[in-house]
Amino acid sequence: MNNCPNTIEVCFSPRLFGDIMTRGDYIVVLVDILRATTSICTAFENGVLRILPVDSLGEAKAMKERGFLVASEQDGQKLDFADFGNSAFNFTSEAIGGKTLVYCTTNGTRALEIAKPAKKIAIGAFINLSALANWLESQKSNVVILCSGWKNKFCLEDTIFAGALAENLLGKAGFESHCDSAVAAIDLWHTAKNDLLGYIEKAAHRHRLKRLGLDDVVPFSFQIDQTDVVPVFEEGEISNVKLLSNENH
Amino acid sequence: MNNCPNTIEVCFSPRLFGDIMTRGDYIVVLVDILRATTSICTAFENGVLRILPVDSLGEAKAMKERGFLVASEQDGQKLDFADFGNSAFNFTSEAIGGKTLVYCTTNGTRALEIAKPAKKIAIGAFINLSALANWLESQKSNVVILCSGWKNKFCLEDTIFAGALAENLLGKAGFESHCDSAVAAIDLWHTAKNDLLGYIEKAAHRHRLKRLGLDDVVPFSFQIDQTDVVPVFEEGEISNVKLLSNENH
Repeated sequence: MNNCPNTIEVCFSPRLFGDIMTRGDYIVVLVDILRATTSICTAFENGVLRILPVDSLGEAKAMKERGFLVASEQDGQKLDFADFGNSAFNFTSEAIGGKTLVYCTTNGTRALEIAKPAKKIAIGAFINLSALANWLESQKSNVVILCSGWKNKFCLEDTIFAGALAENLLGKAGFESHCDSAVAAIDLWHTAKNDLLGYIEKAAHRHRLKRLGLDDVVPFSFQIDQTDVVPVFEEGEISNVKLLSNENH
Repeated sequence: MNNCPNTIEVCFSPRLFGDIMTRGDYIVVLVDILRATTSICTAFENGVLRILPVDSLGEAKAMKERGFLVASEQDGQKLDFADFGNSAFNFTSEAIGGKTLVYCTTNGTRALEIAKPAKKIAIGAFINLSALANWLESQKSNVVILCSGWKNKFCLEDTIFAGALAENLLGKAGFESHCDSAVAAIDLWHTAKNDLLGYIEKAAHRHRLKRLGLDDVVPFSFQIDQTDVVPVFEEGEISNVKLLSNENH
């Protein structure tokens, strides 16, 4: 069994996740570059202890009342009761170091719910690309890269990340792919990679964030390998498995 | 109202059709390059009178018993009761000229069902690309290019056609697009267009057809502008609107 290569599939929308044909155990890499998964990686880089994702505003509000720090937004806007919106720049060491953060977003948390049949769910962003790829290599498991999209629609920024990660994994021993989505994502990554910020000017969500005044985080979100954290969702919470594994040694 | 540009959206899977955000009237272009929409265009080029799409094998069989010519396949294989499978090469002038054809396929007909909220549903393939684009220009309507995919999964061959058509339309007056799927499809079309057959070697369905011995039609399916037919589905049947419009003059 361990001699068979592990497969890589790319899923362009949570709506398509049920059609993914991966057999057996697989790890999902959840991607929401603008902005949830970039923000989560940033929070772990800056020392957050754990993140509790919730999928409803009511639950987020209840957690706030129980004394947790809460990041919550709707359609890109921070909600009044919350401590933070969804920008990575909120999650400084001073604000979240050593603490537990409750996290609720429009897209990301719902995709997390959909991916729950997976063995593990890892959080992927350009800022932790190589660390994530190395961890995935160590897991000897099939991989499904799940793009959150925008309201279930295909989105460019998640897709080019999926292409970058798929290409990185296919360059390692033990992976193969027979998935048209992976081919397309890798080709789009090649089209984009020499000028990522220029390319992403074509993305609808980049302009949506601009209209909302929330696009200050865009350049940071496309900087590759800014952190070696690997946030993984298991048993209701996200923790940094890279850190845990270091602590075990 | 007529001064506003018409929008172009690309939908990578029938599963995503419900998330398309087009407002108002729109025409759907149905795409299943390998092989349904290529075959339908070929049948009209060779003089079929009309095509009646059906979405179940039972219905196809009942139509055969009523004396119709029937094309029907399942997972790429012609069914025993049918006159034809799904290959364009079956639809010669001798076989279907002047006749009514009942058509049932794995993917294409189901996508047709899903697209029924549209004002009209046109049949798109590389072989009728320019004729279709010119007809769409004359319609002054929003356009949704619906890729049939394979069992609701994203597929490369439909996507690069969507890119070719979207680019063609954006080169005409009166169209605009704010859709990440259209951007991606156009970029993939650019990656593929100088060696379409070479590129399509990367597509999973191309190899699926090869294993089934059904890939003789592949080179033909990527030849651009072999016919000026524009098959359109309205009121339960597909007819060639280009021909009808010529007859009206």
